[in-house]
Amino acid sequence: MILLMYDPVPEHFDNLKSLAPDHEFMIAHTEEEAKMRIADAEIVFGNRFFLQSLPYAKRLRWMQSNSVGVDLILSQKQLLIARDILLTCSRGVYDAELAEHTLALLLALFRNLHLLRDDQHASVWRRHRLRTLHGSKCLILGWGSLAKEIARQITTLNGQVSAVRNQKDDSVEGGITIYGKYNWHEQLAETDALIICLPKTPETYHFVNQDILEKLPADAFVVNIGRGGTLDDHVLLEMVASGRLAGAALDVFEQEPLLPSNPIWKEPRILVSPHVGRSLEGPVYKWQALFEDNLSRYMSGKPLYNVVNYQKGY
Amino acid sequence: MILLMYDPVPEHFDNLKSLAPDHEFMIAHTEEEAKMRIADAEIVFGNRFFLQSLPYAKRLRWMQSNSVGVDLILSQKQLLIARDILLTCSRGVYDAELAEHTLALLLALFRNLHLLRDDQHASVWRRHRLRTLHGSKCLILGWGSLAKEIARQITTLNGQVSAVRNQKDDSVEGGITIYGKYNWHEQLAETDALIICLPKTPETYHFVNQDILEKLPADAFVVNIGRGGTLDDHVLLEMVASGRLAGAALDVFEQEPLLPSNPIWKEPRILVSPHVGRSLEGPVYKWQALFEDNLSRYMSGKPLYNVVNYQKGY
Repeated sequence: MILLMYDPVPEHFDNLKSLAPDHEFMIAHTEEEAKMRIADAEIVFGNRFFLQSLPYAKRLRWMQSNSVGVDLILSQKQLLIARDILLTCSRGVYDAELAEHTLALLLALFRNLHLLRDDQHASVWRRHRLRTLHGSKCLILGWGSLAKEIARQITTLNGQVSAVRNQKDDSVEGGITIYGKYNWHEQLAETDALIICLPKTPETYHFVNQDILEKLPADAFVVNIGRGGTLDDHVLLEMVASGRLAGAALDVFEQEPLLPSNPIWKEPRILVSPHVGRSLEGPVYKWQALFEDNLSRYMSGKPLYNVVNYQKGY
Repeated sequence: MILLMYDPVPEHFDNLKSLAPDHEFMIAHTEEEAKMRIADAEIVFGNRFFLQSLPYAKRLRWMQSNSVGVDLILSQKQLLIARDILLTCSRGVYDAELAEHTLALLLALFRNLHLLRDDQHASVWRRHRLRTLHGSKCLILGWGSLAKEIARQITTLNGQVSAVRNQKDDSVEGGITIYGKYNWHEQLAETDALIICLPKTPETYHFVNQDILEKLPADAFVVNIGRGGTLDDHVLLEMVASGRLAGAALDVFEQEPLLPSNPIWKEPRILVSPHVGRSLEGPVYKWQALFEDNLSRYMSGKPLYNVVNYQKGY
C-alpha cells in the first residue's frame, strides 16, 4: 500500500496509479488517519503527519519527503536505520525558486532596497551611492544543485563566484574555484557577499560562527538560504548592529518562526525573509514529477533519486 | 578651450590633455566660474552649471553630457540648433548598473520583499505563496542598449521577454520579438511585468496611460526605470490602490524629488526607489572612458558616439 500525506491532483494521482497498478493507494487527510493507515504502508509520500505516524508503521520500506532538508525527519534516524527504511528527499525540486529568491535578497542588499523601503515609510527622498553585484566577489558555502544554480545566475550578472565544499582539496568546475577544507578561510577577507547554502547536520551547526564572520571585511553582506542553525544568528546580529558587517538577508533562522521578541526583527540592516525561499505551495505541487519518477524507478528496481545518506545527514 | 564641469581625477585629466595637446583646459568649480569661462569654450564636458552658463557661450561647438536622458538640456533645443552645437549623451555608460537595479526591483516585486519588510517592522512572521520571475512574461517598452541588457538578464533567469520599439513593423532579435507600433497593445493582456525604459520626449509623455494600464491583467507589475512622465503616475497609483494592478516599483517619477505630500509614498504595493538606478557617483566617474573616446574622435574628425538627434529628442 502506498500512503500519500497530501491531496493529489487527479492527473498526478492517475500517473501514480498507472505506475504501480498492483498497489493500493490511500490518502491521509488527518493525523489520526495517518497513524491508522501507515501500519500497512510499504511507501509513504510526503512529510505531513509522517513523524507523528512513524511509530505505527509496520512494513514501511521507503519514505519520499517533499522537503530538501531532512534534518527533522532525521531526528528518528536510529529508527529508520533499524527498520532499514530508505529515505529520499526533494533535492533539486525547488532550486529554481530558491536561487531566484537568493538573487532577490542579494540584489536587495547591494541596492539598499530594504533601507529605501524604510525611507519610503518616512516619506524621505534620499539618493544613495549604491554598490553593484556585478564586479563583486561572492563566496558560496555548499556546492549542491542549488549552489550551482545560484552561481550560474550571479556569474551571468558578472559577479565573481567561488564556493566551498566538504572535500579535501580545492578544485575547479566550469571556471569556478571550489575550495576544500583547508584554503577557504583565506578567501573571506576578499568576500563581498557570503552566501550560506548548507544542509543542517551535526557537523554544520554554527559552521558560520564568530571566527568565520570576523574574517569578513566590514562592508561584506551575509545571506542564509540554507538551513537555520548553520549560522550563529546571535553573533551575526551583534556584528551587523555594531557596524562590523554591512548587512544581511536571512531566509532561515535558528528558531522558526522568529519570536516577536527576537531582536533580529529590529535591526534595520538585516532583511528578514520568513522562510519563503521555497514559498508556500498548493496543488499542483512542484514535487509531483520527482515522486512519479522515483515510483517508476522503485517499481522497476532501479536506484532512486535523492537517497539520503544517513551518515552525512543529507 | 575645453571646459570641464567636474573635478577630473589626475589620470583622466592627463588622458584628456594628451588627446588634445593644443587645447587649453579649464575647470568650472562654481556657477560663476562656469558663466565666465564658457565664453571661450569650444567644448563643454559635463552637465553641472551647463544650463545656467549656456547663454554666455560664444564659440561652443560641442557639449558632452554625463547623463543618458537629455530632456532637461533640450529645454534649450532651439538655442542649441540655432548655434549649431553638437550634443552627445552618456548612453550605455550606466547600463550595467541600471539593468541590475531593474532586476532588483523586479525580483523584489515577484518575491514580495517590500511587503516582507513591512511585516518585519511589525515583527510579523507570515509565510506567503510567492511568484517567480522565471516563467513570467515581461514586456519592455523601449529597445535601447539598457533594454537589451535587461532582456539578457531576464532571459538568463528563464523569464520570457518581448519588447516594443518605435518602428512600423514587428521584428525579431536574438529570439526576442520586438513589436512595432501596431501589435503591441495585444500583448498587454498576457503580460506579468511591464518594464518602462523610455526616453522623455514630447511623444513619450504619458505614453503609459490609463488606456494602456487597463489592458494589463490584475496580477501585473509595473516597473519604471526610464524617465518620469512617460508613465501617468497618478493613474498607476489609483489602479494599484484599487487592486486593479498587483504592484509597482518606480525609480523615476513625474515630479522629482517626490514631495512629502505625494500619496505614492503611502501605497504599500508601490516600492519607491528615489532615482538611484543610476546611483550617486564620485570620482572615478563611469563616464570618463566615453569622454576620452569621444574627444579622441573629435580631434581626428571621426563621428562622435551618442550624438543626440534633436528631432527625436534622444
